[in-house]
Amino acid sequence: MADLLQRRYSTLGPYSPLFYSQPIEFVRAERVWLTARDGQRYLDGYNNVPHVGHSHPRVVEAIAKQAATLNIHTRYLNDRVVDYAENLLATLDRPLDRIIFTNSGSESNDLALRIANQHSGSRGLLISDFSYHGHTQALAVATTGLVAHEGLGAHVRPIRIPDMDGPDAGREESEVLKSSLAEVDGAISSLQEAGHGVAAVLFDSLFSTEGLNRVPEGYVSGLAERVRQAGGLVIGDEVQSGFGRTGRSFWGHQNHGIIPDLVTMGKPMGNGHPIGAVALSAPLLDEFGPRNMYFNTFGGNPVSAAAGQAVLDVLAEERLIEGAVAGGAAIQTALRELRRDYPWIGPAKGAGLFFGFEVLDRPATEAGAAPDPARTKEIVEAMRARNVLISRIGRNDNVLKMRPPLAIRPDELAMIIDTLADVLAAADTLARR
Amino acid sequence: MADLLQRRYSTLGPYSPLFYSQPIEFVRAERVWLTARDGQRYLDGYNNVPHVGHSHPRVVEAIAKQAATLNIHTRYLNDRVVDYAENLLATLDRPLDRIIFTNSGSESNDLALRIANQHSGSRGLLISDFSYHGHTQALAVATTGLVAHEGLGAHVRPIRIPDMDGPDAGREESEVLKSSLAEVDGAISSLQEAGHGVAAVLFDSLFSTEGLNRVPEGYVSGLAERVRQAGGLVIGDEVQSGFGRTGRSFWGHQNHGIIPDLVTMGKPMGNGHPIGAVALSAPLLDEFGPRNMYFNTFGGNPVSAAAGQAVLDVLAEERLIEGAVAGGAAIQTALRELRRDYPWIGPAKGAGLFFGFEVLDRPATEAGAAPDPARTKEIVEAMRARNVLISRIGRNDNVLKMRPPLAIRPDELAMIIDTLADVLAAADTLARR
Repeated sequence: MADLLQRRYSTLGPYSPLFYSQPIEFVRAERVWLTARDGQRYLDGYNNVPHVGHSHPRVVEAIAKQAATLNIHTRYLNDRVVDYAENLLATLDRPLDRIIFTNSGSESNDLALRIANQHSGSRGLLISDFSYHGHTQALAVATTGLVAHEGLGAHVRPIRIPDMDGPDAGREESEVLKSSLAEVDGAISSLQEAGHGVAAVLFDSLFSTEGLNRVPEGYVSGLAERVRQAGGLVIGDEVQSGFGRTGRSFWGHQNHGIIPDLVTMGKPMGNGHPIGAVALSAPLLDEFGPRNMYFNTFGGNPVSAAAGQAVLDVLAEERLIEGAVAGGAAIQTALRELRRDYPWIGPAKGAGLFFGFEVLDRPATEAGAAPDPARTKEIVEAMRARNVLISRIGRNDNVLKMRPPLAIRPDELAMIIDTLADVLAAADTLARR
Repeated sequence: MADLLQRRYSTLGPYSPLFYSQPIEFVRAERVWLTARDGQRYLDGYNNVPHVGHSHPRVVEAIAKQAATLNIHTRYLNDRVVDYAENLLATLDRPLDRIIFTNSGSESNDLALRIANQHSGSRGLLISDFSYHGHTQALAVATTGLVAHEGLGAHVRPIRIPDMDGPDAGREESEVLKSSLAEVDGAISSLQEAGHGVAAVLFDSLFSTEGLNRVPEGYVSGLAERVRQAGGLVIGDEVQSGFGRTGRSFWGHQNHGIIPDLVTMGKPMGNGHPIGAVALSAPLLDEFGPRNMYFNTFGGNPVSAAAGQAVLDVLAEERLIEGAVAGGAAIQTALRELRRDYPWIGPAKGAGLFFGFEVLDRPATEAGAAPDPARTKEIVEAMRARNVLISRIGRNDNVLKMRPPLAIRPDELAMIIDTLADVLAAADTLARR
């Protein structure tokens, strides 16, 4: 493996991120279990791309069959892409009734920004102050959650996303709502005063990069309303929260009672096959369409459509979203119990099968309790040592990030929690030394 | 099919481009033959994405096998992506020894611009005045060959690419070289005077969107040299010209005797599977890497790597590049012969298995001979009526665009030419009436 690592450095370079102090080489995976080169098996508590399970036979078969039959761009007609478009649109609320296929979440968010800029005649963009939406140049200048050398564009205004289970814990929810929306108003005014106008707000309904913030009721709808009043569009990035991940709804934005003007998709959409999309209304497409010869060579090819359709089919047939509801509820209960034993962890965060909690340096009730990224990292590594894959997120890198494939079973979810309990116990002992 | 078209309009909208006045619905394809819904078979003289042939069993098997085994991002180690990276890099000249995987040519060109901008500390971009390199926002403002509502960026300078078989025919080649490079000098000065500096030149070695221009010997190397002297990088877009398309070389830029600083790839790379890449030198990656947390979720996954590797394997085993050399030579001879019969067509353009010619409204030797886009369109439609797929390109839409999968056989290439001869004869008769 040292050899493989060296060969990787000599081809892909040493900057492409790798998990763990000792990276793992995987050779195969099935449902929620990955097998390493040395034969060890790992329970996947992290990966949301293999949404319906690693190497799902239905998805593999759909890809293989279609690839053996026809793979062509959309300049000719093919029924696979239209069938899939209809079925995908059926999961969305009206007026979202048109779809543009892409190959990734980055391509989708980049395109959504183009549409919003053209619609508004403005460039001003509201973005969470700790977020990531993709790697294209237009998105790099709107990246606040990781390093991009470009720095923030002059037309970008970062806003702090409130968190009732984080920095805003203990404050009145109505007060947090008021001050947070006042910050939105301020950002909009700032854009207008600078002459940028308001093109859009772009956000992830789960606020996952931020650390799975619990926002006050009415925050997202208030944000959307203000942006629209200023002439901008609402872009819901469903790369993390879509396809039933939160259990409660098929789409994350539905949990907030809003319908974005543009919904962007990626990661779980094809269970690992590169596919993305932008959903929008007919009037919005009727505006963008004639003004731009938008063509995406791979976008909407029948193999990608077959992969996407298989994911929709498996979600329904295996009742995976119902599973995310039940699993999510069990997780929230289990995490509450863990917190009784370990008061230095924060309240359960997230929804459905995207969950986690803050790791602090002392009980949350004690004065001066602060994020503990070092201990968080130790927990992630200790989980790995016990063959469970998880990671961490948030601006302080102290929120555990657990996001297994939706195909995970109740006993396997319990394994994650049990292993976590062991690891927290060990970390607790260490902390008390 | 009318129903399918209507369903497509109601989901993807009516703007997504479709070929032909009566679009074709395809249901399957094999090697260079596509089968329509009505059972008719079409010879593919157009598609470069199914590079080694539609539904190639080796590629399909590689995808199916790997998808059934493991599909995961590069935050864990996997040997497939490293093996492929090594084999792909082996086709490139040093100092190009590092690779970043993406999912499309657009993602690749967008990333190449980011790297060039950061390297140079500038944004100034030289681009052909009739070209297309992708659909992201950063590329939309550099699009000259089709409609993008953004319009050209202030930092973009379009330059006219000379064509010794087009507008520059009859001029001294040395004179054309001199005046064309003077235009490059002027564009660089203009960027410098405006304070943009020079970040890069981005070009397709085949100048395919432009109409397969034959540039003077020394033009591309002179262009590259001037951009580098001004502190910019040379980006070779190999989406059209790469992977042996031109027969003469594996990469289009090799035909011009240069090594770009950044080589971008897309379309044919995975035979239709969405994959792209940027090749660069270690020093350039060592500069970009630490400054940016670049991560591409689907980029470099083992299924995409398997598809890419299978394409390389088939190219070698079936000696397809040798086939492109022989086929290209036969085509050039055949097109010269056709021109003797139909003096209203221009000289053979292109290289290897990307070829075409101008269609004029009267013999080229007659005064006032002009491009004839209407007749060009008629030829493309007449070819389709005879079950051969081709298209057209160029700023006057009067250059036939023929670009079959490299898997095409000599007798099938001859079918394209024979059908073309029939169609030209009919068009000639019509024109003389």
